[in-house]
Amino acid sequence: MRKVSVTGIGMTKFGKHEASLKSLAVSACRAALNDASNPKVDAIYVGNFLGGQLAGQEIIGSILARELGLGAIPATKTEGACASGGIAFRQAYHMVAAGIHDTVLVVGVEKMTHAPTNLVTQAINSAMDNDSNEGISGLTFPGFFGVVANRYMYEYGASEEHLAMVALKNREYAMNNPKAQFRKETSIEEILNARSITAPLGLFHCSPITDGAAAVIITAGEKGIKVLASGQASGPPLMQDIPDLLRIEAIQESGRQAYEQSGLGPDDIDVVELHDCFAMTEIIAIEDLGLFEKGMGWHALDQGLTKHGGKVPINTSGGLLSRGHPIGATGISQIVQIISQLRGHAVNQVEGAKIGLAQNLGGTGAFSTVHIFEGSGV
Amino acid sequence: MRKVSVTGIGMTKFGKHEASLKSLAVSACRAALNDASNPKVDAIYVGNFLGGQLAGQEIIGSILARELGLGAIPATKTEGACASGGIAFRQAYHMVAAGIHDTVLVVGVEKMTHAPTNLVTQAINSAMDNDSNEGISGLTFPGFFGVVANRYMYEYGASEEHLAMVALKNREYAMNNPKAQFRKETSIEEILNARSITAPLGLFHCSPITDGAAAVIITAGEKGIKVLASGQASGPPLMQDIPDLLRIEAIQESGRQAYEQSGLGPDDIDVVELHDCFAMTEIIAIEDLGLFEKGMGWHALDQGLTKHGGKVPINTSGGLLSRGHPIGATGISQIVQIISQLRGHAVNQVEGAKIGLAQNLGGTGAFSTVHIFEGSGV
Repeated sequence: MRKVSVTGIGMTKFGKHEASLKSLAVSACRAALNDASNPKVDAIYVGNFLGGQLAGQEIIGSILARELGLGAIPATKTEGACASGGIAFRQAYHMVAAGIHDTVLVVGVEKMTHAPTNLVTQAINSAMDNDSNEGISGLTFPGFFGVVANRYMYEYGASEEHLAMVALKNREYAMNNPKAQFRKETSIEEILNARSITAPLGLFHCSPITDGAAAVIITAGEKGIKVLASGQASGPPLMQDIPDLLRIEAIQESGRQAYEQSGLGPDDIDVVELHDCFAMTEIIAIEDLGLFEKGMGWHALDQGLTKHGGKVPINTSGGLLSRGHPIGATGISQIVQIISQLRGHAVNQVEGAKIGLAQNLGGTGAFSTVHIFEGSGV
Repeated sequence: MRKVSVTGIGMTKFGKHEASLKSLAVSACRAALNDASNPKVDAIYVGNFLGGQLAGQEIIGSILARELGLGAIPATKTEGACASGGIAFRQAYHMVAAGIHDTVLVVGVEKMTHAPTNLVTQAINSAMDNDSNEGISGLTFPGFFGVVANRYMYEYGASEEHLAMVALKNREYAMNNPKAQFRKETSIEEILNARSITAPLGLFHCSPITDGAAAVIITAGEKGIKVLASGQASGPPLMQDIPDLLRIEAIQESGRQAYEQSGLGPDDIDVVELHDCFAMTEIIAIEDLGLFEKGMGWHALDQGLTKHGGKVPINTSGGLLSRGHPIGATGISQIVQIISQLRGHAVNQVEGAKIGLAQNLGGTGAFSTVHIFEGSGV
């Protein structure tokens, strides 16, 4: 396997756009291509989840190859719900590492805000196993993670304040990020007093509906930020099949693979972007990635260990909660932020960051990818 | 790159099923796993196009990993319209060839017949670039290939009889295939007199709406039917960008790659499954794959060169026209038929077939994959 680096990054602002799915993707791709000094591209991978259902648009890879003038190169869309972007990156990474392609463009994109909310909810629910008794029970994603949060609080003694600390941290980070969807100063009181979505999750504990795109260029060699590891795993798509609601098997297993491949451990990681689709999910993920012990994640929040000055800053982009969550784009935008951190000029730069980790989740734990990157630590 | 073989195949009957998307996929996977003596599977790839739009179901890979008891293995869906299956196979092939995985399950699946025809047409049209003036012009796939057929007849002197010969050949092959959607004896008169869909394409010149699934097991090594080559290319998704309506660039380029990789040429191929989404497309494809000269495909039909006793039998399964076209499953079902041929016990067996080729198209030429396989020729 060859060494592989990320040599270009680009993304649109996340939020509400009039621009089409195609236009958003083209913008992010052009920015990433430009950032990499417009290399010859051998293939394109697209992470997208709801293009067909919400925008009536599939075949995005081929459309982009044409629009960007890349020629008759292979174009592939990957889907794994909210992990579609991370999965696209992983496929592209392996194609370069294996020597099939030298340079690959990976883009994640989603257009959601134009659709009525009930249609968005229905479309997102295609990320559950609907051919089951659970499918007809009306369980939604906020419902699922609300149950997880209740169980976590019961089991480990956390309170709604700890969920609010996640939301507040990520909102504070987003204030400095010009690409983020939510940049207004927000107080812990506002977060605690916001309307309930599925108790104990309030409005600020849930990631929003977002439009946006993010892209990266992956190239053989070491001239860029190195990709050290790529983990991917799946887990039960039905709540009734999950033996322990407080751990997400796919996160643990994809993390285990990535640590093993890189020869690194949780203590080596300087900066992390992970999948805070809900405030509760961030706490579960920092535990399942081994950054903090199981049941101790809320203590880490309490002690400020997941922000600057703490053990490891988490979601310095603002995370899904505040940067926004254009589903197919999320996994790539996480990588864009990690690459920026390792280049040393990110928003909310972590000083001297050398090793970064990006974790992308799909469904209620149906998919997870973990990628680890290395910069020079300047 | 390691040698890679196909060691298991399985598929459902194609046609109208009461069974769900998941059930169809599970049946095909179980058959393929059983055929390969139930190996340990390291990853799953799913080719699917309309699961979200027509069945409200994505995350199929994760659902299947759970349902089949395969553990927390990586699961990935690929989409490239009607080439989704061929693209899934290609990704899986490269992951095995590169040594990332040893054994991979690849399944293609689609559930279409339960949906009203207008919704199916609308969903299929997500395989066009809808963010363009063409998107609002009302062009559909039968419309596009009807234009191509008119141009072909004008340019090369073919007639509607030659389109009917494609339809008749594939219907005759399907009569022997218990998995095929249409097995009733059909006369050339019935085909010529059938109601017009988009002139000159009549009912029998258009592939049907179909449910079904097909699966294969890919393994490192040479104990099975060898995969010699994997080509993939893209082409213009807009009709207005196509310089010559009578050639499909993606087919030519994916074919070129596959011939180059295998060191073989069109004259070495003993049996072919290709993407006859319309009768016209089969004639274009046999020319673009170099099996016959450009403009001479209709002569080949006239002279019986594309069936048993001719130069190279094409679509011995009955093809999309008569085996049926469950979109995401099509590319894998083509490979299932080629593997059967190279094992020496296919329906409509081509005696002594040693080298087989499968070509899968997406959109109006937005994607194409070509895979070449080798058996022992017994």
